[in-house]
Amino acid sequence: MLMQKAALSLKKAAERVVNTKWNLTPLPLRLERPVPSDIRIARSQQPKNILELASEIGLQPNEVSPYGTTKAKISLSVLDRLQGEKNAKYVIVVGITPTPLGEGKSTTLVGLAQALNVYKGVNAFATLRQPSQGPTFGIKGGAAGGGYAQVIPMEEFNLHLTGDFHALTAANNLLAAQLDARMFHEATQKDSVLYDRLVPTIKGTRRFSDIQLRRLHRLGINKTDPNALTDEERARFAKLDIDPERVIWTRVLDTNDRYLRKITIGQSSTEKGICRETSFKITVASELMAILALARNLQDFKRRIGSMVVAFNREGNPVTADDLGVTGALMVLLKDAIQPNLMQTLEGSPVLVHAGPFANIAHGCSSILADKLALKLAGEDGYVLTEGGFGSDIGMEKLLNIKCRTSGDIPDCVVLVTTIRALKMHGGGPAVTPGAPLKPEYTRENLELVQRGLPNLTKHISNGNKFGLPVVVCINSFETDTEAEIRLVKDEALRTGAFGAAVSTHWAEGGAGAADLAELVMDACEEENNFKFLYNLDASLDEKIQIISREMYGAKNVLYTPEVTQKMKMYEEKGYGNLPICMAKTAASLTGDPSIKGAPTGFDLKINDVSLSAGAGFVVPIVGEISTMPGLPTRPAIYDIDINTESGEIEGLF
Amino acid sequence: MLMQKAALSLKKAAERVVNTKWNLTPLPLRLERPVPSDIRIARSQQPKNILELASEIGLQPNEVSPYGTTKAKISLSVLDRLQGEKNAKYVIVVGITPTPLGEGKSTTLVGLAQALNVYKGVNAFATLRQPSQGPTFGIKGGAAGGGYAQVIPMEEFNLHLTGDFHALTAANNLLAAQLDARMFHEATQKDSVLYDRLVPTIKGTRRFSDIQLRRLHRLGINKTDPNALTDEERARFAKLDIDPERVIWTRVLDTNDRYLRKITIGQSSTEKGICRETSFKITVASELMAILALARNLQDFKRRIGSMVVAFNREGNPVTADDLGVTGALMVLLKDAIQPNLMQTLEGSPVLVHAGPFANIAHGCSSILADKLALKLAGEDGYVLTEGGFGSDIGMEKLLNIKCRTSGDIPDCVVLVTTIRALKMHGGGPAVTPGAPLKPEYTRENLELVQRGLPNLTKHISNGNKFGLPVVVCINSFETDTEAEIRLVKDEALRTGAFGAAVSTHWAEGGAGAADLAELVMDACEEENNFKFLYNLDASLDEKIQIISREMYGAKNVLYTPEVTQKMKMYEEKGYGNLPICMAKTAASLTGDPSIKGAPTGFDLKINDVSLSAGAGFVVPIVGEISTMPGLPTRPAIYDIDINTESGEIEGLF
Repeated sequence: MLMQKAALSLKKAAERVVNTKWNLTPLPLRLERPVPSDIRIARSQQPKNILELASEIGLQPNEVSPYGTTKAKISLSVLDRLQGEKNAKYVIVVGITPTPLGEGKSTTLVGLAQALNVYKGVNAFATLRQPSQGPTFGIKGGAAGGGYAQVIPMEEFNLHLTGDFHALTAANNLLAAQLDARMFHEATQKDSVLYDRLVPTIKGTRRFSDIQLRRLHRLGINKTDPNALTDEERARFAKLDIDPERVIWTRVLDTNDRYLRKITIGQSSTEKGICRETSFKITVASELMAILALARNLQDFKRRIGSMVVAFNREGNPVTADDLGVTGALMVLLKDAIQPNLMQTLEGSPVLVHAGPFANIAHGCSSILADKLALKLAGEDGYVLTEGGFGSDIGMEKLLNIKCRTSGDIPDCVVLVTTIRALKMHGGGPAVTPGAPLKPEYTRENLELVQRGLPNLTKHISNGNKFGLPVVVCINSFETDTEAEIRLVKDEALRTGAFGAAVSTHWAEGGAGAADLAELVMDACEEENNFKFLYNLDASLDEKIQIISREMYGAKNVLYTPEVTQKMKMYEEKGYGNLPICMAKTAASLTGDPSIKGAPTGFDLKINDVSLSAGAGFVVPIVGEISTMPGLPTRPAIYDIDINTESGEIEGLF
Repeated sequence: MLMQKAALSLKKAAERVVNTKWNLTPLPLRLERPVPSDIRIARSQQPKNILELASEIGLQPNEVSPYGTTKAKISLSVLDRLQGEKNAKYVIVVGITPTPLGEGKSTTLVGLAQALNVYKGVNAFATLRQPSQGPTFGIKGGAAGGGYAQVIPMEEFNLHLTGDFHALTAANNLLAAQLDARMFHEATQKDSVLYDRLVPTIKGTRRFSDIQLRRLHRLGINKTDPNALTDEERARFAKLDIDPERVIWTRVLDTNDRYLRKITIGQSSTEKGICRETSFKITVASELMAILALARNLQDFKRRIGSMVVAFNREGNPVTADDLGVTGALMVLLKDAIQPNLMQTLEGSPVLVHAGPFANIAHGCSSILADKLALKLAGEDGYVLTEGGFGSDIGMEKLLNIKCRTSGDIPDCVVLVTTIRALKMHGGGPAVTPGAPLKPEYTRENLELVQRGLPNLTKHISNGNKFGLPVVVCINSFETDTEAEIRLVKDEALRTGAFGAAVSTHWAEGGAGAADLAELVMDACEEENNFKFLYNLDASLDEKIQIISREMYGAKNVLYTPEVTQKMKMYEEKGYGNLPICMAKTAASLTGDPSIKGAPTGFDLKINDVSLSAGAGFVVPIVGEISTMPGLPTRPAIYDIDINTESGEIEGLF
């Protein structure tokens, strides 16, 4: 009986010393050709009971909360237990500028983890972002990797998982509801009545709650007896005086709902005409998502939530989540979401799935806490593999300058994933469109297109080197790639600064196909590296944006609208000038224009807007037009998705 | 080690015969006076590992998916395994017309379950509604029962539970997004382009998906080759032609967000000016919630989802969820939500928590599937206790006429919960307001107020008797109740048709305090009953509404607006005339006016609107003004809610 066996081995794990070589039972692959669909491969494998996997990697029973038999939440108390242990090697997986089909970054990460665990005999923990559920029902395609390098069960990975995103949606929207309700109550009540309602007399006594005392403290009112405040102090305390034109906070849904991109709310007669324009974003774009990903511990999580700036008041001063009284309520809604989720790869090695902001509109990394757990559990001789979304310009830059700066965990090596297909596109190949068949340029040898596309690869190699990190190029193999094409890429990679380059066939062969890559990665991690951040925090916002744009993208000039310049000035005046930068930029180009391929230089980068994420701890310049709410196409994937009411199996999801 | 022990006993359970007397280990109570806060009582009890409880009640290991150690999802396959077994007795718990504080219906249900299990030595399963998370952050108060009769852990019960409501929100809003996206795509594309996009040629072949074939079938087009359709057939297939003025479906959130009561969507330039007015409801008001509660099995669940009428087209014909292509996608999103959730009472007896529509605006019952599971698991000599929301006029009427008619499971007895407090209010006592101290009329003996309030009780007794069911009155005891007050109520209850009446002190004493009530309930269940529905389905919609209004509320005339009359006529023409009725009416009065207490007769009942829930399978007349989206007060409970970042414990939630 699986469950009993799992419980017993979990008990054994508790008794032995953790943080040594794992006693991992690999799940054997039965490779088929041609490679079947992702869902068919995933279904053909029986995952280990998650309690069994937890015990294999040294987790103790009280640290694991199963959600069914294939997912579990992992307690943050593991970090306390293992605080004396040394960290594993830390490897980040990024890509070149991708085609719209993606170049297999997650697939490579999973394949590499399988290779290290099963074929190199070392501990390797993959940490992945949780995918957004909205796009799952829009255009087909999961985010669990693919082929023989995926996370299983892939439908669990791609749907609700353990509910973290739903909790984020609920928390985000509770804050929004409280914000609008508060504006309404302030507009319809006298300050004195407002005060009496906010600090009511209950059974003869009147007291401030803790969160109200914090607001008093910020206002410089050092009184604790609600009756002792002067009328002026009562008004200052009670009235947030939010400027309806300068509300930052928006509602979110994890649904591709284009009709919520711009809406007017408050039109019911019960709201007495106090309506305003606002929008919904997709949940992954919520600042709370970034905070979940960037929190170092529970205290830090709370501090960041409380300090989120949700609006400015009519005097131009920031109004925070703490001012609205919601910090604790949001923490309560997110108390389970803060625990990373354990799953497994197709070959039975461990994966932590946690947080998942889009890398174009947000910082785009899985959580610091998941990485910290994995670094301790994999231990000194092990490896932790994590990813930055899209190309190095987007995902890696933010991973290093934001996530690693926050966590203090410095990577040992960069794996840069490329495909012959993407290089051909950068070399001037025809458009690559999801759903449409690939043009012959992509399925037949074309050395000229590859050659002309190489500058994109070398730019990304140089981006990694600029941080002082060794870069291992992974050529994610397609059956149509030719020897000559591959040789061209390998030679150029080595000539232009890569530590090494390997072809990897994990999609078709699982971990075995990534063994060469694994070897290279292990060698690269032995190199001494000279890691340095790209910019210092004490540079001005403008300087930091300039450095990223020039060094990572190849831009010459950064152009700001007058409104952006003015907002950045205001952020600096209000004390937010020393935050890192989280660029929101298309992932489809090194420039701000998704149609421009290759590796152009000397271009202008236009910043159309800028926003503040004070809790997450960054300033977000918006390059060009970026939508924070996707839509559904005329024929979304929902037309194929069904459940077999006899077998209970999902059909048509991927 | 709890987990190991649980796994072992679950294995044993698999070996023995199920459906006999459970081997339940009671959790002992340590009663304190005065009775501490709900959360303190809940925290003072260590729940059994949920796998242990599952084994005690005869569940097999593969039927139980734990979500942590205190909650588990139960597989519907149990129904197949136990299909030959006889059902337990079926008891429904309802109330008189309540004060705004509630009269302890859930508390009584839990206390009664504890009494039957622990003090009467019979199997008793409680089935409860999952509370809405929105109000949890509005006005303090949980829905897990209270005092020494509650479900634990109460914070898990009151927050995300296992994510069912979040899944419903996601499913509801995916449908809404697809509806608006489809209207947009139809408005901006020619019919032929629309058709080609809906039925694309992929790798040289063109085929309809199953859901598209179903639409073709409904349109009477018996072709399966997409290329064989005529232009006219292509246009009919592709164009839903939804009338923007007659969209029924709305978005939902499980948040008290008054600013979403009426909104305008689609105002971004990307939507090209095609905007419209709509609203958000609270998630529990979604038709999908009613369907989750009313589905008899997976097939029935799917059929109901597909047949939801989401809008009418410009010709006045219904457009369904299946026409929008979303049935399967919604099923996939709800595949876990359809499984009931196992938890436990403070004394360690089993509770299934599943679905939770509001009883005023929806039918207000927990799920049929949870009850069916409980009826089999408790077995022939056992008891299943379930509740109808609010008073018998609201919750019980709908429980019997809708839920029991759908399930085919007929109750054996009604428990009618009353308090001296509520009777005094009905007798003319001063207003009872949440948060404010009770007036002295309620805390000192006042026989006159009780006497004058008794007609409300007798009306509810007679309501139960009208269905042919024995009614057991439970006087939910308060310390301030006097002997004389209680005698008055008991005598009147017995004189006016109650099977029996008992004082119950479960709030202060747990199951022991409900032993007398349990005795009476067991006796009542031995009575032969003459159950009959209040109306036949083949009566007209008007006749059915008349019967409910006269028989249950005491109304004389039902008044419809012309629009309502016209809509009802249209529903009957479209084939929805034989559905049962789901009245949306205030719970605070037998009439449509919440300020009218007691048991008035001869009044007029105004129906201001009517709506169709074709998938749930009922027609909803709206009595007076009923809001489907609550708001947050000036000082919501969030000001007190926090998490202790050291201990991880929630503070201030209840």
